[in-house]
Formats: sequence, C-alpha cells, structure tokens
Amino acid sequence: MPADSILLVGAGNLATSLAVALKGAGVGIMGVWSRTEEAARELGRRIDVPYSYRLQDFCAPSVVIIAVADAALQSVASDVARLFPEALIAHTAGSISMDALRLSGATRYGVFYPMQTFSKGRVVDFSTVSTFVEGCDAEALSRLRDIASQLGGKVYEATSEQRRYLHLAAVFACNFPNALYAMSERLLTRHGLPFEAMLPLIDETAAKVHTLSAREAQTGPARRGDEAVMQRQRELLDDELLNIYNVLSDYIAKNR
Amino acid sequence: MPADSILLVGAGNLATSLAVALKGAGVGIMGVWSRTEEAARELGRRIDVPYSYRLQDFCAPSVVIIAVADAALQSVASDVARLFPEALIAHTAGSISMDALRLSGATRYGVFYPMQTFSKGRVVDFSTVSTFVEGCDAEALSRLRDIASQLGGKVYEATSEQRRYLHLAAVFACNFPNALYAMSERLLTRHGLPFEAMLPLIDETAAKVHTLSAREAQTGPARRGDEAVMQRQRELLDDELLNIYNVLSDYIAKNR
Repeated sequence: MPADSILLVGAGNLATSLAVALKGAGVGIMGVWSRTEEAARELGRRIDVPYSYRLQDFCAPSVVIIAVADAALQSVASDVARLFPEALIAHTAGSISMDALRLSGATRYGVFYPMQTFSKGRVVDFSTVSTFVEGCDAEALSRLRDIASQLGGKVYEATSEQRRYLHLAAVFACNFPNALYAMSERLLTRHGLPFEAMLPLIDETAAKVHTLSAREAQTGPARRGDEAVMQRQRELLDDELLNIYNVLSDYIAKNR
Repeated sequence: MPADSILLVGAGNLATSLAVALKGAGVGIMGVWSRTEEAARELGRRIDVPYSYRLQDFCAPSVVIIAVADAALQSVASDVARLFPEALIAHTAGSISMDALRLSGATRYGVFYPMQTFSKGRVVDFSTVSTFVEGCDAEALSRLRDIASQLGGKVYEATSEQRRYLHLAAVFACNFPNALYAMSERLLTRHGLPFEAMLPLIDETAAKVHTLSAREAQTGPARRGDEAVMQRQRELLDDELLNIYNVLSDYIAKNR
C-alpha cells in the first residue's frame, strides 16, 4: 500500500488539531487548503507543508479529509470530487451522513469523525481521542481506520445512523456540561467567589464516570431527595437559572 | 499549640474520605463515631483508631468535625455540644449556616466544607480538594484553616452566605453535568454504542475550563446557531430529553 498523501481541506479548529496530530504521527500530508489564503498560510506554515486557497494547486492526493463547517461541506465536497476523482474523500462531520459525499459526486468516500471538542488556540492531543470511521467499501474503511490508528487514540466503526446518536450524545456529555460550568461561573463571580475553586470538583466529576456509571456516580440534593436544600437553593436563582435547576433536578429525582 | 485530637462524627462517604486523608496527613484522630456500631467499626478499623456509636465513649476531643446527613446535623450537634463543651465543633455541610451550631449550643464552632463529590467506594484525594472554612472567631478559623492546609489542597475562607452560593454553584458544576453524562449514556446504550468512547470528550471538556472561561470554551450546534443540526437532533429525542435539550440550547444561544 502506498504511503498516504493526504490533502487536508479546512483550517479551522478541528483541521488545525488534526493537521498537527497527522504531522506528529508522521502521516504524509500533501498540503492544506482553506477558503482564505491567510488561514491556509497560517496552518501550512505551522506544520510546514504546501498550502493554497485554490484546490487545483494540489495534484492527485490519495486521500482528502474535509474539515469545514457543515454548511460549506456540500459545495466544497463537490469541488473536491470533480478535481480529484481518484481520491478517497472523507468528511469529519458528526451529524452529516456518509451519503452526502456520494451526492456530491465522490466515488470513493467515507467518514473520519474525531469525537472531541475543538476550540481556537487549544490543540487537542489526538492520542486520547475516539475516532469513528465509516467507508463506502471495505477498502475505504480500512484506509481511514489505518490513518486514525496512527494518531494513537481509539478507533471505532459507526454507521451514519449511529453517528447521529454519537453526535447527539456528545452534545449532552460536552456542550451542555460546559454550559453548566458557565452558569456556575456566573453564580460564583456575582458573589465574589473564584471559579478556580470549582475545578477540582469538575475534574473529579469527570473522573468518576471512568469507574462508575453516571447513574451510580450521581450525588447532590436532587439525588438525595433533599427538598429542604432544594427549596433554599431555588430562592437564590434568577428565573433563567431557576428553570434549568428545576428541569435537571426533576430528571435526577425521576431517574434515581 | 497542642496537636489536634480530632473526633470525627459520621462514617458516610465524606467522613470516610476525610478520615483517610486526615490519617494520611498525620493529623491526630482521637476516634470515629457513627450512629450504627457497624459503620463506626468499619471506618475505625480502616484507619486504625478507636470507634464507637456512643459519643460518651470519647474523652475531651479538642476538635469535633461533624460529617453527617444535613437532616441529622442539628440533633447530633446538640449532643456533641452538651458532651464536649470545650471542643471546637465544625460541620461540613455546604448549605447549612455556621449559626446552626450556635443554636445547637456550641460555644466554639466553625465550618469545614470540602467542596467535592463523595461517592461510596471511591476515596477522594484531598490534596486536590478546595476546602472552605469559617470560624466563630479568629482562633476557630485559624485552627480549621490549619487542619485543612495539612490535607494539601487549597483552603479558602467563605461566609455562610457565600457558602450557599458555593454549594449551589457546585450543583451546577457537578451534579447537573453528571446527570447529563447519564443522559448521554442512555442515548448511546440504546443505540449499541459504548459510553467509554465518550470519556476523552468528557475529560477534555473539564480540562478546557482550566485555561479558558466556560463561555469561551463553549462549542456545539447551539453555540454556532446551527438550526439545521439542532432540528435533526430534536427528532431523535424522547419528550423528557427533548425538553432538556431545548432549555439548555436556548441558554447557550442567548449567552453566546
């Protein structure tokens, strides 16, 4: 099997972490493309590979990984499929089916979905990332699985249907807990208390579900059915946070 | 200052982790009390100190730390205050004011609140715990601060009023995120997917707020205002989870 010569399409948060990880793992990257020259240059220079904002500047990649915003995927994928008909084309989107690539004209295609939260200015260590792959055929699947394995994290296979639930489950396990951290920060800041004091608790809460089921790990007034504490806590909340407090406490109480 | 001779009152999850931490730090523990002989024995043997279910079996402790359920605190504190009028008596409850101890008859009293989530079968490393102390006077405060410092974690001072907000903020930063982990687990399990794959995402979400504010760290469809993805996700949810999805997504969208 020839060494992969990957074209990375996109230069956002996910693309940047992925580029750094691929480079670090010694996977051959042919170049990086971004819609804007500036973003392409920044990422290209960072990992020392050719870069361009014109797809036609690249020549016969064996694999193209597309990591762009969901809304741009269909149009970018169509351009890629037209220019590189021989390439294996993969997208990285949690909630878009593999079939979207076929509809964009790709003949060899798959999905490479690293389930992680990517923020600007923070490069993610891929050796701890779960990556979910899907392929239009066994060869495509195996190729994407190989690339993912080289990054050092766990690799799973998932259908497009399963990936919809994965992405949804990730919203519940990541985006919503982070929103709750923000609410916690808001409560503390308003009362002259440092959010930093909350970090050990946040870390331990995450660590617990490595060894206990989340249901077993549940603590707090709603879990104990401690109405007296809950009533006193409700009195401290504004309407917006009170509604959230009630909805989540009800869930905990019902699912004890 | 004499070495502390602490009587630990309670043998639940918090008391157990605290006992192990005090013992490990070489703080003098006179003994442990629990309402039931069995629980007292289990913890007493574990850290190799005297134990009893009768408070009068202990003689002149310098400090009594009460770590019992909120509902039992007032009655246990009254017994402690009557039997040990010279002792400095501290409780460990997030949402009970220091004054509750004065009302129970204590003359020297304070609060020793380790802000952490304590589950059965999981001993917490106190060197990573934020402990909040309060004292009826400078001497009580200083004594409790010393004990907390010996455990190796960060020690903060907080008034009873601030502690109410701390406890509430902890519900938002710990109990509610854990409930969301449980929902995530439920979604995955129903669709044949392993919850273990979600752990790197949970860990990274917790790690991010060590260096970014939670608001900066926010990602996901609601943060991006991606209505198309959100609409497709809503279709996958039952009524209970849909309500939670909408309430939290609205919060994220409004606080971008």
